[in-house]
Amino acid sequence: MTDIALIEAAARRMQGRIRRTPLLHAPLLDRVAGRRIFVKAESLQLTGSFKARGGWSAVSALPPEARAQGVIAYSSGNHAQGVAHAAARHGAPCVILMPDDAPQVKIANTRAYGAEVVLYDRRTEDRDAIGARLAGERGLTLIKPYDDPQVIAGQGTVGLELAEQAAEAGLTEAPVLTCCGGGGLASGIALALKARAPGLQVRTAEPAGFDDMARSLASGRRERNAALGGSVCDAILTPTPGDLTLPILRKLAGPGAVVTDDEALRAVALAFTHLRIVLEPGGAAALAAALFGADLPETVIAVATGGNIDPATFATALDRFA
Amino acid sequence: MTDIALIEAAARRMQGRIRRTPLLHAPLLDRVAGRRIFVKAESLQLTGSFKARGGWSAVSALPPEARAQGVIAYSSGNHAQGVAHAAARHGAPCVILMPDDAPQVKIANTRAYGAEVVLYDRRTEDRDAIGARLAGERGLTLIKPYDDPQVIAGQGTVGLELAEQAAEAGLTEAPVLTCCGGGGLASGIALALKARAPGLQVRTAEPAGFDDMARSLASGRRERNAALGGSVCDAILTPTPGDLTLPILRKLAGPGAVVTDDEALRAVALAFTHLRIVLEPGGAAALAAALFGADLPETVIAVATGGNIDPATFATALDRFA
Repeated sequence: MTDIALIEAAARRMQGRIRRTPLLHAPLLDRVAGRRIFVKAESLQLTGSFKARGGWSAVSALPPEARAQGVIAYSSGNHAQGVAHAAARHGAPCVILMPDDAPQVKIANTRAYGAEVVLYDRRTEDRDAIGARLAGERGLTLIKPYDDPQVIAGQGTVGLELAEQAAEAGLTEAPVLTCCGGGGLASGIALALKARAPGLQVRTAEPAGFDDMARSLASGRRERNAALGGSVCDAILTPTPGDLTLPILRKLAGPGAVVTDDEALRAVALAFTHLRIVLEPGGAAALAAALFGADLPETVIAVATGGNIDPATFATALDRFA
Repeated sequence: MTDIALIEAAARRMQGRIRRTPLLHAPLLDRVAGRRIFVKAESLQLTGSFKARGGWSAVSALPPEARAQGVIAYSSGNHAQGVAHAAARHGAPCVILMPDDAPQVKIANTRAYGAEVVLYDRRTEDRDAIGARLAGERGLTLIKPYDDPQVIAGQGTVGLELAEQAAEAGLTEAPVLTCCGGGGLASGIALALKARAPGLQVRTAEPAGFDDMARSLASGRRERNAALGGSVCDAILTPTPGDLTLPILRKLAGPGAVVTDDEALRAVALAFTHLRIVLEPGGAAALAAALFGADLPETVIAVATGGNIDPATFATALDRFA
């Protein structure tokens, strides 16, 4: 089970290897929002997202024999790069299972981090069966994207940094809006803040139509999304909250926020103009909630979770909203 | 005269008010370059460029009476925003003289920082005469963009941070490529590094056709550029090196590097993809030199100086090179 001790142990294993990301703010952005917004820029993390933390935490926590055998992950996105990067730096073999229609650039980047990419046809092949076979044959350890105590602990190190940075900025009470897919980052941050900055409370941010976490927090039951895809916020589309993450967030998080695709793209454009950082739409959902949400106090914190966006989508966001 | 004591005094006045910017690196960027590149991301500075430092240093160094009277600067770009931001935070009146054909967004941003923008017609009016009249009437102090000891000291705080960050990253010997207009930043960094990290040597980076500093360093005389405009690197087009900056750089800097406009735009695109930061072409000149320069060692540092770029130019860089 993830707790503050596990998060602090993960932070020690990351020391000097994973970047401490800055907490940014900009007076002109505050003017647009009508409130003060502080942005934890995890898009500046190695590999371009907070997933480098969870990957590092999980790989570094393995017993040496297991690490030498190698790891496997299923992902076409940020988790793939986070695990591949961590495995390479630990000298661990790494297999990433990706659908064969994943964007070429994502396949190429994952390979460039040193991983063996195994492609499968998602219409005819069973990813879990292929993964289980490979893992069995080679003795690989599966690194799940969020439902793993060490992954949650790794993401929780964002919360440790935030607790310090908020104190430096004089912030003791504020919602911490956090982009949410399966909830690994939100639950890790929530655990860290409960221990280190109890006046800061996590609130998840999700795309409209994919607000399984917000609805689950509201209803008290595990809710599912009707669709599996169809939002520009591809990085945070998951069918339902995690088994480990939902109970943590039910205990510690405030109500979930929901943003439209256009709000996420506007946040991408405003982050370009006023913060000069590159965000992907799914990584800008929390900033969108901070900018355009109705029921928020004068000062909020938003975690900008990733910046792996293709140039055409970015150009479209600028063309429409910058 | 600027020296390490003046730089350290500026750093103390900035404490908690000016951002300590991160030193970024990315394995996939290193692959493109064929060498290790560390990027000091001053584009993440308040106001989007290192000019916030020089502005802060100069305004905060004024005697209280002079500060209460106010300051004036001539600039349509990053210096305007840096001075306006510093003046507003010090409660000092601020006038910025801008040509009336400056981009609307720059005029609007400078006003949003709280400055009074005075427009002039650059074909028919004399900027210096208007500035001198306003300064005289209102008792304003002129903040020059680079030829001012306190401005150089403020920019030199980048060098103090770099010295610490390079040591943390284990870098003791490396060129520090620095985008160069009048030379305020390069000379400030050079002074700081001489005192705090003598194995790191500044090398200026300029656009082809506007390499007055590189030619002045090579010839030992003050050289001038033939043209006043015509490069996409608008932030760093100055006619000739500063009176204060050239002697410092002649003593402390290595040979200047020169990059083409296309190299600067490619650096903008690569910074988008691999570092997820927004750079303006003039702010990417040093990164371009680090990426594409021929006579460089295995590890280099580049100072990315600014990120105030209009969306259309950014989209063009992505379209052509990302």
